[in-house]
Amino acid sequence: MELLATCYLFEGLSESQMQHLTGITKETSIQKDQWLFHEGQEAKQFFLIKKGTVELLTKVNDELELPIAMLRDPGSCFGTSSLTAPYVYSLSARCAEQGSLLVVEAMELKELMQEDRDLGYILMTNWAAHLLNRLKETRQELKIHFRTLFKSMTS
Amino acid sequence: MELLATCYLFEGLSESQMQHLTGITKETSIQKDQWLFHEGQEAKQFFLIKKGTVELLTKVNDELELPIAMLRDPGSCFGTSSLTAPYVYSLSARCAEQGSLLVVEAMELKELMQEDRDLGYILMTNWAAHLLNRLKETRQELKIHFRTLFKSMTS
Repeated sequence: MELLATCYLFEGLSESQMQHLTGITKETSIQKDQWLFHEGQEAKQFFLIKKGTVELLTKVNDELELPIAMLRDPGSCFGTSSLTAPYVYSLSARCAEQGSLLVVEAMELKELMQEDRDLGYILMTNWAAHLLNRLKETRQELKIHFRTLFKSMTS
Repeated sequence: MELLATCYLFEGLSESQMQHLTGITKETSIQKDQWLFHEGQEAKQFFLIKKGTVELLTKVNDELELPIAMLRDPGSCFGTSSLTAPYVYSLSARCAEQGSLLVVEAMELKELMQEDRDLGYILMTNWAAHLLNRLKETRQELKIHFRTLFKSMTS
């Protein structure tokens, strides 16, 4: 439960809500270079780092992978596309250093949120805030490319 | 209320929830070239198009604006950064063709969501799905730039 409490998604939940969440998580070990999921696959689970390192990446083409994030802090979560329609992973995840994960079945979490709308509201508010932040960061990266392009066109 | 019902944010709400929402909207007219807000400003309101056209854009540098979207369909909404912490507009909005908007005070909507967690859950779920979609689109744009860069490096 302490590990769950460090994840931004669950910030603001009550102790009894956290206990319900603990009830739907299980633990699994991961090996170096193991793929946890690939982008485009149906997203049924999300994960929290307990120990080890997981790399998130996206394929630019057959020869090039674009690294998005390297997660090693306990409580870091990924596979969160499983929380939201259309329930398709938008990135790939590969274990970079062996360890263990907490796994949450998204369908069970969905049922929990349907039953407890307060939990659902808090979780979805946290998730939206995180997504908005990621969107802003990604737009910033895009702007850097435009600036470079603009410079090369005007110099 | 019919206009509100066409906005993706309010999909799935009951008729009485929609009536509560209608109670916190007001109408305002907009003139061509009028700025509705600038990126970086505190986000206190969000807007729905009733009539006219609004352009969303972001500044790349002093000389270059990057157009993000042109909204003209009734029910299209913008200024949605006002729904989520840190409550700062991430884009600028300028009227491209005169018309009228529905305005929602974000604080009043927040109070409504606090009181009615079911409404809050549904609205935040819709908002997160939209953000995830925008994030994927923005990542796709970024990939196109990387592909171009990669081609120029390897050719």
